[in-house]
Amino acid sequence: MNQNKILLDHGSGGLATKKLIEEFFLSRLNNPVLSRMEDSAVLYLPADKVAFTTDSFVIDPIFFPGGDIGSLSVHGTVNDLAMQGAKPKFLSLGIIMEEGLELKVVERIAESISRAVKEADVLIAAADTKVVGKGQADKIFINTSGIGILPNNINLGIDKASPGDKIIVSGFIGDHGSSILLARSELPFETEILSDSAPLNRLVEKVFQAVPADSIRLLRDPTRGGLATVLNEISEGSRVKIEISEDLIPIRPEVKSVCELLGLDPLYLANEGKCVAVVDAKYADKVVNTMHKSDEGKYAAIIGTVVEKTDDFPLVLLKTRIGGKRIVPLLSGEPLPRIC
Amino acid sequence: MNQNKILLDHGSGGLATKKLIEEFFLSRLNNPVLSRMEDSAVLYLPADKVAFTTDSFVIDPIFFPGGDIGSLSVHGTVNDLAMQGAKPKFLSLGIIMEEGLELKVVERIAESISRAVKEADVLIAAADTKVVGKGQADKIFINTSGIGILPNNINLGIDKASPGDKIIVSGFIGDHGSSILLARSELPFETEILSDSAPLNRLVEKVFQAVPADSIRLLRDPTRGGLATVLNEISEGSRVKIEISEDLIPIRPEVKSVCELLGLDPLYLANEGKCVAVVDAKYADKVVNTMHKSDEGKYAAIIGTVVEKTDDFPLVLLKTRIGGKRIVPLLSGEPLPRIC
Repeated sequence: MNQNKILLDHGSGGLATKKLIEEFFLSRLNNPVLSRMEDSAVLYLPADKVAFTTDSFVIDPIFFPGGDIGSLSVHGTVNDLAMQGAKPKFLSLGIIMEEGLELKVVERIAESISRAVKEADVLIAAADTKVVGKGQADKIFINTSGIGILPNNINLGIDKASPGDKIIVSGFIGDHGSSILLARSELPFETEILSDSAPLNRLVEKVFQAVPADSIRLLRDPTRGGLATVLNEISEGSRVKIEISEDLIPIRPEVKSVCELLGLDPLYLANEGKCVAVVDAKYADKVVNTMHKSDEGKYAAIIGTVVEKTDDFPLVLLKTRIGGKRIVPLLSGEPLPRIC
Repeated sequence: MNQNKILLDHGSGGLATKKLIEEFFLSRLNNPVLSRMEDSAVLYLPADKVAFTTDSFVIDPIFFPGGDIGSLSVHGTVNDLAMQGAKPKFLSLGIIMEEGLELKVVERIAESISRAVKEADVLIAAADTKVVGKGQADKIFINTSGIGILPNNINLGIDKASPGDKIIVSGFIGDHGSSILLARSELPFETEILSDSAPLNRLVEKVFQAVPADSIRLLRDPTRGGLATVLNEISEGSRVKIEISEDLIPIRPEVKSVCELLGLDPLYLANEGKCVAVVDAKYADKVVNTMHKSDEGKYAAIIGTVVEKTDDFPLVLLKTRIGGKRIVPLLSGEPLPRIC
């Protein structure tokens, strides 16, 4: 009975666990490292410097327009590595499932992870599955950690933005956040908004091929908390004042409509396939032009400037369309739970 | 209101998330890598070969005699690295919390992680926190991934057990499993059983200092699924028949009593501070004697032998106290959910 659902036994570490892993995951993610099934994977890393990151994904709903929790959990960690200028190489996969989850859902997610991993050119090197009782988790949570190789000449940092540098975003902002909000709501919207969930490692690699490594001060992906949060982190990390212009920020008309309807600010909406780059002004156009040549960066734009050093009052200012200026504060309150 | 509990806002990625991370985690886990708060950590790894592993912890109850989910999630991953012969260096920490979890619980767990990390001599290099709504997770789940440095002369493998090798366990088995079962039950047991949750990296290091690296064929920690599962994995991985003797396996009398009472087999109970070593017979005594000099290995014992190569019928045999032999199968059914 219940052969088509996740049972507690699938988390016991015994025969059922073994079968689940072999049938659903090993068959799709198979590679020489993972299939050894050791307690830990042995990796050959021809580098002195590596990047390491972790992220847990608890998104609701688990399937959404443009992606699902499986692809998202690959993209999220690949992008965190790419934002350090690293070449993503190995991911780990920690899956927590709720008893009663349908096996065909597990299969669909495993399939999606497998596709995302191939697209981003990384290997799942280590994996773990756990099962908790019905009502003790909401369907499925996924943690991915990642290791990337960091070229010796790349040395990005949240403290490296300096006056004169340009702020670039790689495309439309707010797609992921508004897609999820719409998927959750019962609003009678005719147009579906697709999440922008995508790997950014290729785009970043192309940028570093096009301009000197030290002309890129730092990269960040504006996920949870959105563009506003990332810009605040940069202004605080580098102790600078940043000024951006509302009319330069690429936002899709349908995202604007959703935001107006729901009373949300697109600057705070999550993105899962966009990066913010702080770049030496001399190379800003070249970076944008390079991005434009990729699907992921087709709508890249310079949206602002690092204005001045300020030890006491780091802040982000927005020049509004009607000519005023307002402070863009760090998000407080107004949670959008489980957006990633 | 509710200032003493986890709120959805703590997972928003904004101000509340920042405060939570700074107050509870950064203050305790502070180190030059983590405190940079980049999207990914930059690590210097002076090694060609590294070990990489991941594990999610969903244990219930989160506090138990001898440990808690915080210390367990450090020990579990440190041990998975040590079982590969690697020196654990960096961990990541992915925390999923349920709305309404008391902040003093978060604080106690952060404190425990901090102590465990110091004891095992590793750094938390990357961290992530997520919050899900009330009833969407059971209190707190923790994922840790880990990176360890692997000396070039160490090359362990599940396929390396060969006839004549001795099977060693580093101490009493079944402590963790019976501790958790007892903590969950309402049995009027007078003696409390402590979980054996502990880091094994120091013990492993001492063993490798005492004997030639290639005399250790492989190491495994018998966590979920217990000793029986690990021995089955070894017999299958190396295509060998393994024979162990019931009267040589170290089991505490109180663990035996609990097992008899609950109708459980201690061979299948989880351990969180024990290792199984398959060792060249010539060096088996030396390994056991080396283990005896450490607290973690005080009760180490040789419990059996790899008997013969067998491509078709890898299996584990138990010589019982009364002189018979029985097959020790892979666990099927009888789940002990959320034991780690």
